Amino acid sequence: MAAQGVKLLGAWASPYSRRVEIALKLKGIDYEFVAQTLSPKSPDVLKYNPVHKKVPILLHNGKPVVESLVVVEYIDETWSSGPSILPADPLGKANARFWAKFIDDKLMPAIINIRRCQGEEQVKAIDVVVELLKVLENELKGKKFFGGDTIGLVDIAANFIALWLPVHQEIMGLQIVTKEKLPVFCAWIDEYLNSSIIKQSLPSKDELSTALLAYHRS
Amino acid sequence: MAAQGVKLLGAWASPYSRRVEIALKLKGIDYEFVAQTLSPKSPDVLKYNPVHKKVPILLHNGKPVVESLVVVEYIDETWSSGPSILPADPLGKANARFWAKFIDDKLMPAIINIRRCQGEEQVKAIDVVVELLKVLENELKGKKFFGGDTIGLVDIAANFIALWLPVHQEIMGLQIVTKEKLPVFCAWIDEYLNSSIIKQSLPSKDELSTALLAYHRS
Repeated sequence: MAAQGVKLLGAWASPYSRRVEIALKLKGIDYEFVAQTLSPKSPDVLKYNPVHKKVPILLHNGKPVVESLVVVEYIDETWSSGPSILPADPLGKANARFWAKFIDDKLMPAIINIRRCQGEEQVKAIDVVVELLKVLENELKGKKFFGGDTIGLVDIAANFIALWLPVHQEIMGLQIVTKEKLPVFCAWIDEYLNSSIIKQSLPSKDELSTALLAYHRS
Repeated sequence: MAAQGVKLLGAWASPYSRRVEIALKLKGIDYEFVAQTLSPKSPDVLKYNPVHKKVPILLHNGKPVVESLVVVEYIDETWSSGPSILPADPLGKANARFWAKFIDDKLMPAIINIRRCQGEEQVKAIDVVVELLKVLENELKGKKFFGGDTIGLVDIAANFIALWLPVHQEIMGLQIVTKEKLPVFCAWIDEYLNSSIIKQSLPSKDELSTALLAYHRS
């Protein structure tokens, strides 16, 4: 589909920006990616997201949409091309929104906490994350993706766990997501990272590893 | 509209439960309210919301929907009776979701922080809340409600600020929401609390004051 005034202000290594890219690619929407730095903030970031001053920002015909999950729903509701990202029925929608919120409100802070802790505290922080991942894993039982046969909102929200978390754990020498602890989740990661849209939307493991090494050394 | 197997597991003094009640009343849906206590948790709360173990839980034909804003969207999408809670257009929807999320992610934690602080720290905590409220107030300019002429998602999400916050500040002898600092917001509170649906859905200021006095003494 030809570009229709769609611009994404994003950051290469941000899993939140990548959520929006996955959604746009799923729908087959051409867009212009405008790379942003964390600091200094560009005048466009301050103009279009004055409340949070962060990316991703989707500009559609000049109008900004922000907050990654809000943007993904906006994309799903705006373009009928490509597969639906949310189910059509209200109960399926509510379920998807619940798990996407679980990832952002519970799982992401718990994952961030791992890097803040050391020693025995870090072991406990990892246990918390594994338990939360088991709760999420339970949603995958008997399904290829959280969205069923196709990638949905929860799969998009979980992109950090599929790619960023394994790379972080490798760099830090930690065991968080392993086949022994989370077999169903690991099968999902394989399936997810090998699907064609995700391959086009996310950096490779090696590229991300190189970028995150610099982050861990900082 | 006759009850259609709609049950709300909620708590009388919870602004989150009340959000769901407002949505159900806006849509004219009869429901059975099943009062829950904070402790101990009832078997139904543990069964229907095993992840968070909290109310509100909407049971519709035996199926649970949880997380108050997710439930409000579910109600809007399930019943076409009554006014729409979210706008029809994707940009309007995204805007409403953005501000509802702002209330839950930024404003509510900042408000809770006021009670955790004392002295100079509390003065600073109040300033933070007032600044956030000014950001939100900006969204009201030229409008009766956040939803325009009718009550929408953001108005429902903001019910805590309309009723609970003024009662808390009175009990604690603090000045947070005042006509001097937030004139537009205060006009919205008057309009909101005097609208017929809200009057049916929220406790009176006196009832809530009596209930919250016990909370502040605990």
